[in-house]
Amino acid sequence: MSSTILRLACPDRVGLLAQLSGFFAQHGGNLLEVHQFTDSGAGWFFARMAIETRTLRLGLPALRTAFTPLAGELEADWTLREAQSRMRVILMVSKLGHCLADLLWRWRSGELEFDIPLVISNHEDFRKVVEREGLEFRHMPMTTESKAEVFAEIAGTFRDVRPDLIVLARYMQIIPAEICAEFKGRILNIHHSFLPSFVGANPYQRAYERGVKLIGATCHYATAELDAGPIIDQEVIRVEHFHTPDDLVRLGRDCERLALARSVRWHLDDRVLVHGNRAIVFRD
Amino acid sequence: MSSTILRLACPDRVGLLAQLSGFFAQHGGNLLEVHQFTDSGAGWFFARMAIETRTLRLGLPALRTAFTPLAGELEADWTLREAQSRMRVILMVSKLGHCLADLLWRWRSGELEFDIPLVISNHEDFRKVVEREGLEFRHMPMTTESKAEVFAEIAGTFRDVRPDLIVLARYMQIIPAEICAEFKGRILNIHHSFLPSFVGANPYQRAYERGVKLIGATCHYATAELDAGPIIDQEVIRVEHFHTPDDLVRLGRDCERLALARSVRWHLDDRVLVHGNRAIVFRD
Amino acid sequence: MSSTILRLACPDRVGLLAQLSGFFAQHGGNLLEVHQFTDSGAGWFFARMAIETRTLRLGLPALRTAFTPLAGELEADWTLREAQSRMRVILMVSKLGHCLADLLWRWRSGELEFDIPLVISNHEDFRKVVEREGLEFRHMPMTTESKAEVFAEIAGTFRDVRPDLIVLARYMQIIPAEICAEFKGRILNIHHSFLPSFVGANPYQRAYERGVKLIGATCHYATAELDAGPIIDQEVIRVEHFHTPDDLVRLGRDCERLALARSVRWHLDDRVLVHGNRAIVFRD
Amino acid sequence: MSSTILRLACPDRVGLLAQLSGFFAQHGGNLLEVHQFTDSGAGWFFARMAIETRTLRLGLPALRTAFTPLAGELEADWTLREAQSRMRVILMVSKLGHCLADLLWRWRSGELEFDIPLVISNHEDFRKVVEREGLEFRHMPMTTESKAEVFAEIAGTFRDVRPDLIVLARYMQIIPAEICAEFKGRILNIHHSFLPSFVGANPYQRAYERGVKLIGATCHYATAELDAGPIIDQEVIRVEHFHTPDDLVRLGRDCERLALARSVRWHLDDRVLVHGNRAIVFRD
Repeated sequence: MSSTILRLACPDRVGLLAQLSGFFAQHGGNLLEVHQFTDSGAGWFFARMAIETRTLRLGLPALRTAFTPLAGELEADWTLREAQSRMRVILMVSKLGHCLADLLWRWRSGELEFDIPLVISNHEDFRKVVEREGLEFRHMPMTTESKAEVFAEIAGTFRDVRPDLIVLARYMQIIPAEICAEFKGRILNIHHSFLPSFVGANPYQRAYERGVKLIGATCHYATAELDAGPIIDQEVIRVEHFHTPDDLVRLGRDCERLALARSVRWHLDDRVLVHGNRAIVFRD
Repeated sequence: MSSTILRLACPDRVGLLAQLSGFFAQHGGNLLEVHQFTDSGAGWFFARMAIETRTLRLGLPALRTAFTPLAGELEADWTLREAQSRMRVILMVSKLGHCLADLLWRWRSGELEFDIPLVISNHEDFRKVVEREGLEFRHMPMTTESKAEVFAEIAGTFRDVRPDLIVLARYMQIIPAEICAEFKGRILNIHHSFLPSFVGANPYQRAYERGVKLIGATCHYATAELDAGPIIDQEVIRVEHFHTPDDLVRLGRDCERLALARSVRWHLDDRVLVHGNRAIVFRD
Repeated sequence: MSSTILRLACPDRVGLLAQLSGFFAQHGGNLLEVHQFTDSGAGWFFARMAIETRTLRLGLPALRTAFTPLAGELEADWTLREAQSRMRVILMVSKLGHCLADLLWRWRSGELEFDIPLVISNHEDFRKVVEREGLEFRHMPMTTESKAEVFAEIAGTFRDVRPDLIVLARYMQIIPAEICAEFKGRILNIHHSFLPSFVGANPYQRAYERGVKLIGATCHYATAELDAGPIIDQEVIRVEHFHTPDDLVRLGRDCERLALARSVRWHLDDRVLVHGNRAIVFRD
Repeated sequence: MSSTILRLACPDRVGLLAQLSGFFAQHGGNLLEVHQFTDSGAGWFFARMAIETRTLRLGLPALRTAFTPLAGELEADWTLREAQSRMRVILMVSKLGHCLADLLWRWRSGELEFDIPLVISNHEDFRKVVEREGLEFRHMPMTTESKAEVFAEIAGTFRDVRPDLIVLARYMQIIPAEICAEFKGRILNIHHSFLPSFVGANPYQRAYERGVKLIGATCHYATAELDAGPIIDQEVIRVEHFHTPDDLVRLGRDCERLALARSVRWHLDDRVLVHGNRAIVFRD
């Protein structure tokens, strides 16, 4: 069943839900699914509505036009999208391929539906893995000296490709703050620790040294501050004294894959809204 | 903030959410929280709405009267309740007191808000534990011969006390089918296995014999068929080959407590709706 | 560090551990890791010992010879293996490839170390996925009529290849009892339910109908009785009322992959011992 | 079955397990359970052995005397204890009673076996809860000015009572470094966050502000550095955007209780060994 998705955040006020559902009712739209959340502390309202497309008397562009005045009045951030339209996702990877392989499998099998205009890496390791799927692999190596220049190229590529999402699937270079800002809410990073523990480099080694009994992974939107962006999902696994740092790396890989795959799914499905540094996730 | 809770299930049709939110808007009610779910297979609609009480222009009885025609038109099962009104809960227990103790602690500390008109047991073991909380403890022992008669008395007590909920907190007698039917959706049982595995007696022993690697507990509404009613929550814990049946009993206790406490909370908070043998739980 | 692994089960008696550690001490072997478990109910003793190979004064064949009299005296089932020797593993799959893909990725990346003499399928779907890894793919289709004959061929293949392990990675044909018996303890099956719930066909659909709040997967050795063999590992994930049977299938895939991958790892690493219908797993 | 427990840590060397099991064999002791772990990085060996007491030809004092020369040669830290001897445990609490209530229930029901010479609190809130169990409640209030003096009294009490364990069951005063040092490895603290995230005050509020998707609790031995001692156990629970800081407090309570109860159990059972800042836990 084809559906149209509204994703909206605005200052809270009385009657918002009635206004929104009234708007779609007025255009014939049957509501299939509604999620709503009011953050009373922040005074902010968040909603996601799935409307049965074939019941709408307006096509998507006209619906957007019709919605614009209401949205303006509500001072809302919003998107209206066909659920079936496929997002364009750039994947980026360095030398650890488990997240890339996992996403490619979910994409190939149809579990996750999206298009991959290209895969970018600062290394050559996964060219074959990518190209055998019929995808473009772009090697964009960088040295300390060339970093600024290469990131400028990368930003240019983003502007050309206009992805709906960029996934840092264990891409081990820090994204410059201005790129994070320009593509805010569209760069997903998987960090290999249970944030805010072990921000930065070598989290598994540091987890080992601290002697924690659970390790984890965190998927968040990249922001200027390293590993501090809004968290979409986290996953943990129990570890014991006999696990070496290498064991933690191995066990953590499964956490990383799961947290990343779920987060990508929710982004693709317009289920994530960000307010300040908190992510509202209308999970499915 | 005082709120009024609508809990409603009805056949699905277009515009239900607009109708419901419109009804409350018309009476001035500010929607604080909305949960909605459409079971497309079953063609059924479920909703829970929390309305800010002080914004409503009608008191609860008048609001119920005003809602009745709409509910009739929708062929809905529904309740409208003040969130702050305290449910009356009868606790029943036999010889294992961990669930009773846990609920009493959550009740005493205010984590769960409800009234306990009485505690019923077929044994004397927990009289002191109950009475020292200032609660009535009623010993209703039964033998094979007296069982029918004692259950008739118990049913009579239920009719007198008119509880909103009866919790079988490890009450180890099977509730007769006619009592399950009369108090349908109001009798919560905690079963000490991960249902539908190990229905009936001695689930931990049988879990041990089967060599499972996870054990669990299941909280469900009691129905005529043993351990087959709608499931509200389940909890599991990992076990290993070195755990004896006694260890499983010990580890399972924590699963039982958690699954039961959460289920009681959701029932008290009007978050559970039942359709056929499935429970819709708008978790908090 | 190269190690030699003893895996042993025998009737319990006093002094077993001293005898075993004494045996290796006598041959110069430094014990790196010892796991031991006594099932007092069954009166049975289980052990796994990792011995530093370079400290042993005997090579593996001579060590086996030296150990044989002691093992005989103890009436032990035992194996002695170089940890570094790679097991030979036949993978079998039908039309759902997530477990196959997951194992191939863990194998290719070196997370799991084993050899794959061939992959058998009753369908052609995964020929490309297998052959692009440089592996042999053998299509062995079967109809109701040809089933007995094809399984005879399959058993013949097993006898020729002499695998240390056969993994039913969502191979959707029931293995005949006599093959289970002949390759006892060497056929791993991943069942897509939390056993003993939902033995047999369509477990996700039945889990949906029962309204469970957690679904799972179980990895066990195949035996004559369907889905009733010794359980090595289980994994669960929480589900909610809004998950359709298709969602359960999707969410369950991750459970299946994890439970299977861990079980394969433990088998490859000589960490699983079976007694009756219970598996002793010295997890790492 | 009565057992004697050896708990030992020493520099690693060849043949340790044979030496230890040989020692007990020489005195007739039947080994019931053996746990061993070698930290190759640190070059340290850890073991726990349960010996069937009635098979030993020596009583505990004589056994200790007999073991002393071997232990000296191995430069070992060790204890030898009757499993059945009950540890003496001082409980300390401030104004949040869930951990206290949980431990009292497990103690009263016999799930955890230990003696409680007294309960210390800086508040009067739980006097009744403690005294109705027939236990001594000692109110030791402190102000900023009196803190040093009161802690000196507390240390004096510890010296008098000579507890095997002191449990900070949400005791909200920082234990002075010199008391941590004097009772090293005997003071268990439950911290209400998933350490090393949110060390110090108000962890739930800070978890809320960071927008984490899992919260937790950590049980560790208290050391001079706040919340930085060896971790024995951790527990987590999933949270969502709709959970307020108060919800996190509520949900976290169950994590705290479980992590603390398990840690207490393992300490009582001589299952915890500490090396540097890491805890080796031979879990049961």
